[in-house]
Amino acid sequence: MNDSQNDVSALRGELRYEGKAKRVYATPDALQYVVEYKDDATAFNGVKKAQISGKGAINNAITAHLYPQLEAAGIPTHFVRQLSGNEQLVKAVTIVPVEVIVRNVAAGSFSKRLGIEEGTVLARPVVEYCYKSDALGDPLINTDTALSLGWATEEQLARIRELALKVQAFLTPFFAARGIRLIDFKLEFGTLASGEVVLADEISPDTCRFWDAETNEKLDKDRFRRDLGGVEDAYSEMLRRITA
Amino acid sequence: MNDSQNDVSALRGELRYEGKAKRVYATPDALQYVVEYKDDATAFNGVKKAQISGKGAINNAITAHLYPQLEAAGIPTHFVRQLSGNEQLVKAVTIVPVEVIVRNVAAGSFSKRLGIEEGTVLARPVVEYCYKSDALGDPLINTDTALSLGWATEEQLARIRELALKVQAFLTPFFAARGIRLIDFKLEFGTLASGEVVLADEISPDTCRFWDAETNEKLDKDRFRRDLGGVEDAYSEMLRRITA
Repeated sequence: MNDSQNDVSALRGELRYEGKAKRVYATPDALQYVVEYKDDATAFNGVKKAQISGKGAINNAITAHLYPQLEAAGIPTHFVRQLSGNEQLVKAVTIVPVEVIVRNVAAGSFSKRLGIEEGTVLARPVVEYCYKSDALGDPLINTDTALSLGWATEEQLARIRELALKVQAFLTPFFAARGIRLIDFKLEFGTLASGEVVLADEISPDTCRFWDAETNEKLDKDRFRRDLGGVEDAYSEMLRRITA
Repeated sequence: MNDSQNDVSALRGELRYEGKAKRVYATPDALQYVVEYKDDATAFNGVKKAQISGKGAINNAITAHLYPQLEAAGIPTHFVRQLSGNEQLVKAVTIVPVEVIVRNVAAGSFSKRLGIEEGTVLARPVVEYCYKSDALGDPLINTDTALSLGWATEEQLARIRELALKVQAFLTPFFAARGIRLIDFKLEFGTLASGEVVLADEISPDTCRFWDAETNEKLDKDRFRRDLGGVEDAYSEMLRRITA
């Protein structure tokens, strides 16, 4: 499946934003956007690029499956409903330019930066913050920096941390029950017109590290980043396990 | 003045630790160490090396001048007394492997990493933490990481932050009164045998950025890092202003 094989929602208006993996469109309702999930894959801050066939639809389906369950677990999200294979309707948010990474197990940049062997289980979840900036490569920051530079308020940052840890507490056993170790994941948050902080963006093999609980086989974007092959199969397998 | 022109303290026993800028020796008292300040200068994690004539004695004298005043301001330190030109007696501590950087103004790695022009005044002080590891280049971390990897306890980190901000609150006006803008500084903390957290290491042009309040001329190690010349003069000028 690729973008052209999906129906295009009648709600889709003017293109408001195009990121590496998604496009965001206005709708007739100023408080809602259409998000289109692309098959485009990038890694290493856009240096490595490819198409992963069917990725947009899979990530859309996974996110559409998970977000209502997160809502039910007390985590407000931007999600409204799935519109088509690779489109979903969301509440209009202003994205907080502070990306949140939650880590259960050392991997990727964390392992490299700190010399901690990939796979080392962390004694407690680590919440890291990055400044959302493609130009700068999403540099690591801390909450002091975000506050000092006006990227978020103290209240927003406290709420973001609270919600990120709630997501971790929900998803870790959710995936364990499906034979998946949730190694780490990246979240983005936004503010509604009311000021409420809600979970935005997506939760998918693009934004999480998933390892098979039996074999530690990687079922996420690291297959693309590290040229491990079987990328499409891994994404499909994750969709299958999540929706089973 | 170089190392050989300094008296060597009779207290100096076995070499316990040698860092890039200091040596630490045992003394007959297990609860005290002698710290020897070297003229060696390094930058970019040891890639750039040189000798700065008289640096050891100047940094020793500046630290010996500042630490008793920090103690008087309610900040416990490892400092006992100056022993000679480039030696001081300190309480024996176990260094917490979490370096603390306090920033009043954007400069150096912070400016580069975040695309913030050097000299931008921060709306509030930013406290950053790095893992003390020459092998890894002292990577940026946050308190979650330090806790999760067992580098410090929650109580120690809270106390370290409190003391770092107390040092900032004392030093910023102290230097302002001497015509110096305190741009940023790095601190290290240690624990005494009792478990008490105390300020260790040094405070000097090696560990702080000092800009002349009138001209913004750099009076610190950036003159060495950036090949600006006049390194020895800048260190001497800082000693003169601090002790005036």
